[in-house]
Amino acid sequence: MTSSPHTALTALTLAPPAQAGAALGTIDTPTLVLDLDAFDTNLTRMQAWADQHGVGLRAHAKAHKCPQIALRQIERGAIGICCQKVGEALPFVQAGVKDILISNQVVGAPKLALLAELTRHARMAVCVDNAENLNAIAQAMQAADTSIDILVEIDVGQGRCGVNTTDAALALAQYAHTTPGVSFRGLQAYHGAVQHVREPAARADICRDVAARIRRYVDVLEAAGLTVSTISGAGTGSAQFDAASGIYTELQAGSYAFMDADYAANEWPSALQFEPSLSLLATVMSVATPGRVVLDAGLKAMTTESGLPRVMHRAGLTVRQVNDEHTVLVVDGDASGESAGLPALGEKVHLMLPHVDPAFNLHDVLVTVRNGQVMEMWPIEARGPGR
Amino acid sequence: MTSSPHTALTALTLAPPAQAGAALGTIDTPTLVLDLDAFDTNLTRMQAWADQHGVGLRAHAKAHKCPQIALRQIERGAIGICCQKVGEALPFVQAGVKDILISNQVVGAPKLALLAELTRHARMAVCVDNAENLNAIAQAMQAADTSIDILVEIDVGQGRCGVNTTDAALALAQYAHTTPGVSFRGLQAYHGAVQHVREPAARADICRDVAARIRRYVDVLEAAGLTVSTISGAGTGSAQFDAASGIYTELQAGSYAFMDADYAANEWPSALQFEPSLSLLATVMSVATPGRVVLDAGLKAMTTESGLPRVMHRAGLTVRQVNDEHTVLVVDGDASGESAGLPALGEKVHLMLPHVDPAFNLHDVLVTVRNGQVMEMWPIEARGPGR
Repeated sequence: MTSSPHTALTALTLAPPAQAGAALGTIDTPTLVLDLDAFDTNLTRMQAWADQHGVGLRAHAKAHKCPQIALRQIERGAIGICCQKVGEALPFVQAGVKDILISNQVVGAPKLALLAELTRHARMAVCVDNAENLNAIAQAMQAADTSIDILVEIDVGQGRCGVNTTDAALALAQYAHTTPGVSFRGLQAYHGAVQHVREPAARADICRDVAARIRRYVDVLEAAGLTVSTISGAGTGSAQFDAASGIYTELQAGSYAFMDADYAANEWPSALQFEPSLSLLATVMSVATPGRVVLDAGLKAMTTESGLPRVMHRAGLTVRQVNDEHTVLVVDGDASGESAGLPALGEKVHLMLPHVDPAFNLHDVLVTVRNGQVMEMWPIEARGPGR
Repeated sequence: MTSSPHTALTALTLAPPAQAGAALGTIDTPTLVLDLDAFDTNLTRMQAWADQHGVGLRAHAKAHKCPQIALRQIERGAIGICCQKVGEALPFVQAGVKDILISNQVVGAPKLALLAELTRHARMAVCVDNAENLNAIAQAMQAADTSIDILVEIDVGQGRCGVNTTDAALALAQYAHTTPGVSFRGLQAYHGAVQHVREPAARADICRDVAARIRRYVDVLEAAGLTVSTISGAGTGSAQFDAASGIYTELQAGSYAFMDADYAANEWPSALQFEPSLSLLATVMSVATPGRVVLDAGLKAMTTESGLPRVMHRAGLTVRQVNDEHTVLVVDGDASGESAGLPALGEKVHLMLPHVDPAFNLHDVLVTVRNGQVMEMWPIEARGPGR
């Protein structure tokens, strides 16, 4: 500790993790890295699949929380995006996204006030599964002299939100159809659990059941004279079948743009072979004990509720554990403390994340690369706990 | 969507989650809430325990990443703080913390350059377990015309970073002792796994072994003429025994200020009965299906690698699942879809987090309360993946 300050304390910062034009290997870590070639391929493949089946792609922005990504999804043909939270939607509207579905319930006055404001700048819709909540939405919109579209959420097997009877759905739809401030647009029908069923045949079976269930709701609503213009749902894992089912008007896939280890464990048809475009870049920070090395990334740079990350671009390495700030790598098999094949101190390692969505949510910036060269840094502006 | 904007798009924001002086129940969710009475009690108890045993408390700021908390820990008597990352340390130095140990290896030029700058504003130390890394640190400090204290990290059973032989420790200590830019201060000896051993007797046994192991290193270093002025380690779970062992000069506890469900599962002596001071406040956002309610907080507001959260301040409720943005609550037992006792739509629920450290890292602000009233909002300035 010397007594002559060279840089004012308030001006001190850690340099940005990357410089445009620099080599990939110069990126400071831990940092999320997006390979633009693989990303572009994924956007193209999912959009082509949606187009081919005459269904809209409403890309789910909860996966990435990054307006720069949403703008590229829309540029390729996506009809808009979904968000899970009103606070999450705000930076996307500010970035110019003009069509957003909050694919979730919104409860509470501060959130509804912001939602009302957003309707002045974008075509907005929100999900409901409760009359009291729908009434609160209508009141908030009336108070702000605006209106919002409503999707009635039905539970198609997720076991979380959404009504469970056609009577309940009809009552909400009729209320939305007749009440100022809200306007009935259709149904939200998302089945999360099917996304990670590994075998295509098993996924197809569940998707067929889901489609039949949705059909029963549509029949009841239409018999009552309502127009169901939107049926929104599906994810990366079920898009293959949900697009072909003819029941959905839009697909809410998000992870397809990146792929994670959990989705990679699914079996995929050739037209929807998505490429891993996202990695967490980490640096070897400790090699003190033969048989293992320690990376400088842990639970503050990724999450492990869906399993451990996988090492990309080099064979023979296994992640043994992930702690708050550390990841321990060993040689596959790891019997006798084998060191041959382990990366050296300071070497960088790409990790394929177990679950993309909460990982993006830990980072403030995404570094994009192409052909091993840093291109841009995209802010993950909607990062946060999600109000 | 109307055509007359009332608020400019760029000026739109979601209102802050709380207002000073307002009732706790008005806090918008999901938000981290700190009960100051319990927090003060915890600070007092751990500080008293350290004082009573003549050992310094170097509070671990990786737990909370919040300078306002560190300043209060120091005000109560803590000798300084630990951080795990250089980027994490920066906002603490800027807030006026004058003594920081980076209780971890720091690898890479950008990080070492910042570390050198920090030595001009605070007493800094860093851990090493590798000669090449120590040399890089010395070079970076020399280049910046400064110097830093070195703790040689020894692996006392954690199985992660740290040297494993007295020879290796001695070589690093001698190098640090003789090389310009670095100065040998002592040993880092943290055993993470012991922290969550439930039975005090089992924790005590492990701590005794760890102390004996450290003693062997100290003997070798002192026999070589080195002064080991600092032995830093211990956590909330082992502080009871590590303070009493006489080997540690400072304790690195962090979670004691908050307690989480994982630590709460340990058995504690009466003098170290820490109180749960931290909760994640969430709102019931869906009650569509009898037998369950859904909260508006998920994996973007907490983490589940240490288990599921627990409902605080009301009995009879169990967390069934935590998804990206949702938590499902059921009545304990949950056999027949029982709804009696479940909170209503819009009600707020406090969750005790499974693991404090990565949860703080998801939030930008901590709302403090006392006697059910909002006091202040403290920025979690060091939040981030940790460079």
